[in-house]
Amino acid sequence: MNFKDQEVVIEEATPSSFEGMDIVLGAVENDLSKKFADDIVKAKAVFIDNSSAFRLDPNVPLVVPEINGEDILKHQGIIANPNCSTIIGCVAVHGIHEVNPIESMVVSTYQAVSGAGIGGMNEYFDQMKALVSNEPLYPQVFPYQIASNLIPQIGSFDENGYTSEEMKMQNEGRRILHTPDLNVTCTCVRVPVVRSHSLSMNILLKDEMSVEEIKKLVEKAKGCKLVDDPQNLQYPMPLDTSDQDLVYVGRIRKDLCQKKAVNLWCCGDQIRKGAAINAIQIAEKWIELNERN
Amino acid sequence: MNFKDQEVVIEEATPSSFEGMDIVLGAVENDLSKKFADDIVKAKAVFIDNSSAFRLDPNVPLVVPEINGEDILKHQGIIANPNCSTIIGCVAVHGIHEVNPIESMVVSTYQAVSGAGIGGMNEYFDQMKALVSNEPLYPQVFPYQIASNLIPQIGSFDENGYTSEEMKMQNEGRRILHTPDLNVTCTCVRVPVVRSHSLSMNILLKDEMSVEEIKKLVEKAKGCKLVDDPQNLQYPMPLDTSDQDLVYVGRIRKDLCQKKAVNLWCCGDQIRKGAAINAIQIAEKWIELNERN
Repeated sequence: MNFKDQEVVIEEATPSSFEGMDIVLGAVENDLSKKFADDIVKAKAVFIDNSSAFRLDPNVPLVVPEINGEDILKHQGIIANPNCSTIIGCVAVHGIHEVNPIESMVVSTYQAVSGAGIGGMNEYFDQMKALVSNEPLYPQVFPYQIASNLIPQIGSFDENGYTSEEMKMQNEGRRILHTPDLNVTCTCVRVPVVRSHSLSMNILLKDEMSVEEIKKLVEKAKGCKLVDDPQNLQYPMPLDTSDQDLVYVGRIRKDLCQKKAVNLWCCGDQIRKGAAINAIQIAEKWIELNERN
Repeated sequence: MNFKDQEVVIEEATPSSFEGMDIVLGAVENDLSKKFADDIVKAKAVFIDNSSAFRLDPNVPLVVPEINGEDILKHQGIIANPNCSTIIGCVAVHGIHEVNPIESMVVSTYQAVSGAGIGGMNEYFDQMKALVSNEPLYPQVFPYQIASNLIPQIGSFDENGYTSEEMKMQNEGRRILHTPDLNVTCTCVRVPVVRSHSLSMNILLKDEMSVEEIKKLVEKAKGCKLVDDPQNLQYPMPLDTSDQDLVYVGRIRKDLCQKKAVNLWCCGDQIRKGAAINAIQIAEKWIELNERN
């Protein structure tokens, strides 16, 4: 296959494919990740896995490098790459959390079609074309029409009424932010946007804090860009964060119900920081930590 | 002008236009509502006003008929029609609130382009056409591209960092739900959807209540339709509520942070129930109350 003017050989993975490798980046479904994990570990490579197969395994670090990069040191062969919207939400708030711990969060997401892969993106484009030319459309990737519509379901439903995607924000967020008792109540919604997930976050802090102080913490937090000048119509939008590595954070303001809570709005490219870039950053951090030790 | 095969005469409104009328339905900007309000009251017509000019005036009832229709009896010539997303949110929760008072709400909205009028809808269609044919687009009605994007601003910004639209949910909600100390912290977002606003609502109740009990209250609440069977992929979507008068409510589940709170998701057509239909229903209720007295 040609990639950036170079010929690259693509091979089918087999149990013996991993001999001599230092790093294996996994971008496959859970069953394939599970199938090959032992082979990768036996070959003494480190397996940076983008599936959700190992994310809640206590022996597997779940890492966003700018937040809990040192957790990589505890790996036993596998390092898990977190869920896309969880990465974006955690990057947005980690600078605040380090100084003023978050006690709970109410989150509503606005998730792009690219979260469902290239098939989701193609379906969305086809539906837009059908809409502007008044032709019928036939949803296949998404359960319903997504162009000019919203679908309040991402993943499958648990018995508690939450989707698998909604529970990830709490369960993975706890591990990334090192806060095992963090409660997050989340509503995940698919929206007709191509790239970049957006989150409306209401965070309850341990102590009351001014908006100015919070803005300063966001501004100096790694991986974040503060975009918060509403009078000049500056706030994060998914179009601006597409094909960017930073999570944009803005609309920071006091909650009107609880003194210790604040609202914020953030956007991040879920293909880049929400998936591929974070995996690369884990690999880079692993190399850096290996060189240091 | 021809309307439904009938010729209808359109005249410019003047101070003397309202003589002999029983009901005047206003669908104009605040300045025009204020300009003619006295003339309408002097002519002894009742002025049902869709602008926001009088919504917070303590002498003007702010009415959603299925919630506080009896407030009409207190009118002194003017009755105000509430903000669109506030109507939809209040209809979704009023059945619960009557039995188990709501103490506070965290709301994130997903608001359709039709909230900005026919100009907003045309701009959205034009932008979709430009996107599918790879042509440049020039936002005019909205401050930024809205097709395949999200804009976290509706209305102008107050000093507290909230938009005028976000403050309406609290300030108008208090009057409609007869709860002067209700706190609502809201984030309003414009989304690329043609008709129907959607709301992700987190409501803190006075007492803990099971999901089943809440579903029953929503099911029998006037103006609501319970659409909540996630296992069979049944939940409210803006496409289904477009051109409907009912507010669809679903995804009802316990909050994971607070025992007394629940999450829900609702959609309603903001042109119909969120504006025009609610004005007509106020007129019908006014006639009914007049006939009764």
